[in-house]
Amino acid sequence: MSIKPRISKGTRDFLPDDIQKREYMFGIMRSIFRKYGYDAIETPSFELTSTLLGKYGDEGDRLIFRILNTGEKVKKADIEALNNNQLPEFLNSISDKALRYDLTVPFARFVVQHQNELSFPFKRHQIQSVWRSDRPQHGRYQEFTQCDIDVVGSDSLLYEVECVQIFDEVLSCLKIPGFAIKINNRKILSGIAEKCGAYEHLVTIVTAIDKLDKIGEKGVLDELNKKFVPDSAINLLKPLLSFSGSNEDKIKLMEEFLMNSEVGMQGIKELKEVLSYFDKLGLRRGRLDFDITLARGLNYYTGAIFEVTVDNVNMGSICGGGRYDNLTAQFGLNNISGIGISFGADRIYDVLNELHLFPSSIKSNISYLLINFGGDDMISSLELAQKIRAKGMDCEIYPSKAKIQKQFKYAGTRNARFVIMIGEDERNSNSIKLKNMESGAQEVIDRKEFLERL
Amino acid sequence: MSIKPRISKGTRDFLPDDIQKREYMFGIMRSIFRKYGYDAIETPSFELTSTLLGKYGDEGDRLIFRILNTGEKVKKADIEALNNNQLPEFLNSISDKALRYDLTVPFARFVVQHQNELSFPFKRHQIQSVWRSDRPQHGRYQEFTQCDIDVVGSDSLLYEVECVQIFDEVLSCLKIPGFAIKINNRKILSGIAEKCGAYEHLVTIVTAIDKLDKIGEKGVLDELNKKFVPDSAINLLKPLLSFSGSNEDKIKLMEEFLMNSEVGMQGIKELKEVLSYFDKLGLRRGRLDFDITLARGLNYYTGAIFEVTVDNVNMGSICGGGRYDNLTAQFGLNNISGIGISFGADRIYDVLNELHLFPSSIKSNISYLLINFGGDDMISSLELAQKIRAKGMDCEIYPSKAKIQKQFKYAGTRNARFVIMIGEDERNSNSIKLKNMESGAQEVIDRKEFLERL
Repeated sequence: MSIKPRISKGTRDFLPDDIQKREYMFGIMRSIFRKYGYDAIETPSFELTSTLLGKYGDEGDRLIFRILNTGEKVKKADIEALNNNQLPEFLNSISDKALRYDLTVPFARFVVQHQNELSFPFKRHQIQSVWRSDRPQHGRYQEFTQCDIDVVGSDSLLYEVECVQIFDEVLSCLKIPGFAIKINNRKILSGIAEKCGAYEHLVTIVTAIDKLDKIGEKGVLDELNKKFVPDSAINLLKPLLSFSGSNEDKIKLMEEFLMNSEVGMQGIKELKEVLSYFDKLGLRRGRLDFDITLARGLNYYTGAIFEVTVDNVNMGSICGGGRYDNLTAQFGLNNISGIGISFGADRIYDVLNELHLFPSSIKSNISYLLINFGGDDMISSLELAQKIRAKGMDCEIYPSKAKIQKQFKYAGTRNARFVIMIGEDERNSNSIKLKNMESGAQEVIDRKEFLERL
Repeated sequence: MSIKPRISKGTRDFLPDDIQKREYMFGIMRSIFRKYGYDAIETPSFELTSTLLGKYGDEGDRLIFRILNTGEKVKKADIEALNNNQLPEFLNSISDKALRYDLTVPFARFVVQHQNELSFPFKRHQIQSVWRSDRPQHGRYQEFTQCDIDVVGSDSLLYEVECVQIFDEVLSCLKIPGFAIKINNRKILSGIAEKCGAYEHLVTIVTAIDKLDKIGEKGVLDELNKKFVPDSAINLLKPLLSFSGSNEDKIKLMEEFLMNSEVGMQGIKELKEVLSYFDKLGLRRGRLDFDITLARGLNYYTGAIFEVTVDNVNMGSICGGGRYDNLTAQFGLNNISGIGISFGADRIYDVLNELHLFPSSIKSNISYLLINFGGDDMISSLELAQKIRAKGMDCEIYPSKAKIQKQFKYAGTRNARFVIMIGEDERNSNSIKLKNMESGAQEVIDRKEFLERL
């Protein structure tokens, strides 16, 4: 019985050329993360559901992929719960594990679990897959790669500075011509809610503002209205959503708006300090923009928040992150402030493709293809292949004594740089016939001399 | 509410030192795979259940982790099936995806799905996680990494030779002192079953022989007996299980035993041809041993089969593989023979640890730690850090103006090679105080000179 091969929706295969492009991108990230002292860790693909649920809001919880218990355990399914439409109880009765939704929550679990093996502040980077049951659409996948750095155990604003430097250095090294590193502070948003007399609506306000890019100013105001945020608050908020100007202009506006809000003014103070470092340090290709309307949907942020958008590319943010003060508390470790940023590998990949920024040298190929003439000639070729590889070069021998045209065609599809032929003449004279596949030039060389050249 | 942090059983976190060791191991594999022309591909973590189920035998199917359908779809649970103890039907009603069990079946699906984008013979390597719901025990995990190479689209025995060469080169480069590359051929096993007059019991015989290492000769014979293999067959089989001698002795024995079995003699012929190449090519540290009792449990093998065991280490096989002629046929592509081998990364890691074969230089560390004296001194340090990184070196600055003892203690736990101090004197004279943390030596150098040295 034959099955038509299909892949699960929202997932992808990566062919050799894709992998080489991805490795180019990850290689740049890894080397920069390491230059800033962020070593790699990895956590398991699945965690206990109790670790993941309740950390990402209701919508996040719904997007988490759960893993079915195996063997007899699945017979404990709580059918009554299903019949009573108590879906969470039903799911819990047949599943106690779930695929990771992001890298931050597992990292918080990791820090608490290994706290006695780590030295603080603890920095790490992590490049791994995450899974979300999003409706698959262009550029959105159910399995995708996140590249995160986080540091926990310090509330120093130098790490905010470091995050901005790393955004700038990674994206500059990837040759992205221009990009905005947007910065805001959750304390400023708290201050805004407070000054609007709508502090109890903070989450609603943050969630609505977070959608500004997608639904526009009117959409945000409608949503606030629908969710019972008072008109007086909405009217105060409105001018902030559309204000434009330099960082200095915006800071001035907010200093006036937030006057007497302690939390708001603390946010402004932190923001100004972070910005001030860049007067000295500068940035390579990025611009650091204070964006009052930047909100970030995730609940765990408490201080600085970031997003990065690329100039002249019609795509949402490609990176994000921020400071969180209480994330490890949920696992029993208090007073550990952390900050982390995430590079959306798949979106960055799409940007690099769209702007033709992958080096043209990235292409799956082979340096030497040895033609197979069978018999003793083949043995000579096998022996030479072994010596080429001992020199650290890559090569392969055609697997059978096929017609030479067929073998050359294979060399072509493999993008072989050189073809090597050892026939009877070359075997007897200890030489090879070497063909440069780009120029077409062909020469006979002594085998020893050839190996010395490599 | 605080949750005590726990990890799902059978899974692991990898700390920075673990990752560096793993990267050392994967780096060697990757570079050797590429030298033989095997580029990397990746497939999704989960596949449709229809792609995976039925490929690994009943036991394999039971060990596959299934993913629950999300959202409303889970309400379609077939409760009647559950009540009637029809577990597969119940599972299918709530799950249509499953985590990958190995890399071979997804690879076969990949080849068929992308056949028009690939050139044949198609070679690839793949280093990814696989998941099995095995009972967790020492050295066995529910999530582990497989490192595979496969080539499909040719039945040339040169690929059997290449597999042996790659086993030998990878394990020799990892400095494993001695290891046996065991080889057998499914056709020889078929011939044995045929000659025993028990061809219809072939799967039973293969499955039983596969357990020889674990349950011993008596265990195998008992199992055959229990599964209704005739005594006459068992008596013929018995001497083969305990026969020892050189490859030549064993070939001689089997040539006599298998006389008149066409399939058996074909297996012997293939085996002899593969062995003969190594008279010329030699092996580095491995021994190539014909093992009549090597069976490999998976159903899809049809020709050569391999396993590798390390001398003087009490552990099962660390690598395995073999030829399969019909794997892509299940996805609708016929007449594509393939061969592949798999390196068990976690077992190899354990071997390298046990034999102390990881280079001692592998250790998470930082080259330069800059002490933070606050204020303008800190700005100078930040500027220097930026220049150190621009030279491609790694460094970090302590995040706050803490007591110097505390900062040096951090430098110690981070294994900093050098500590850099910029106080008022150094700032005014454009110099730095550089302390070698190994020797304790300390010097004051001009900042420009220091940067030129890097």
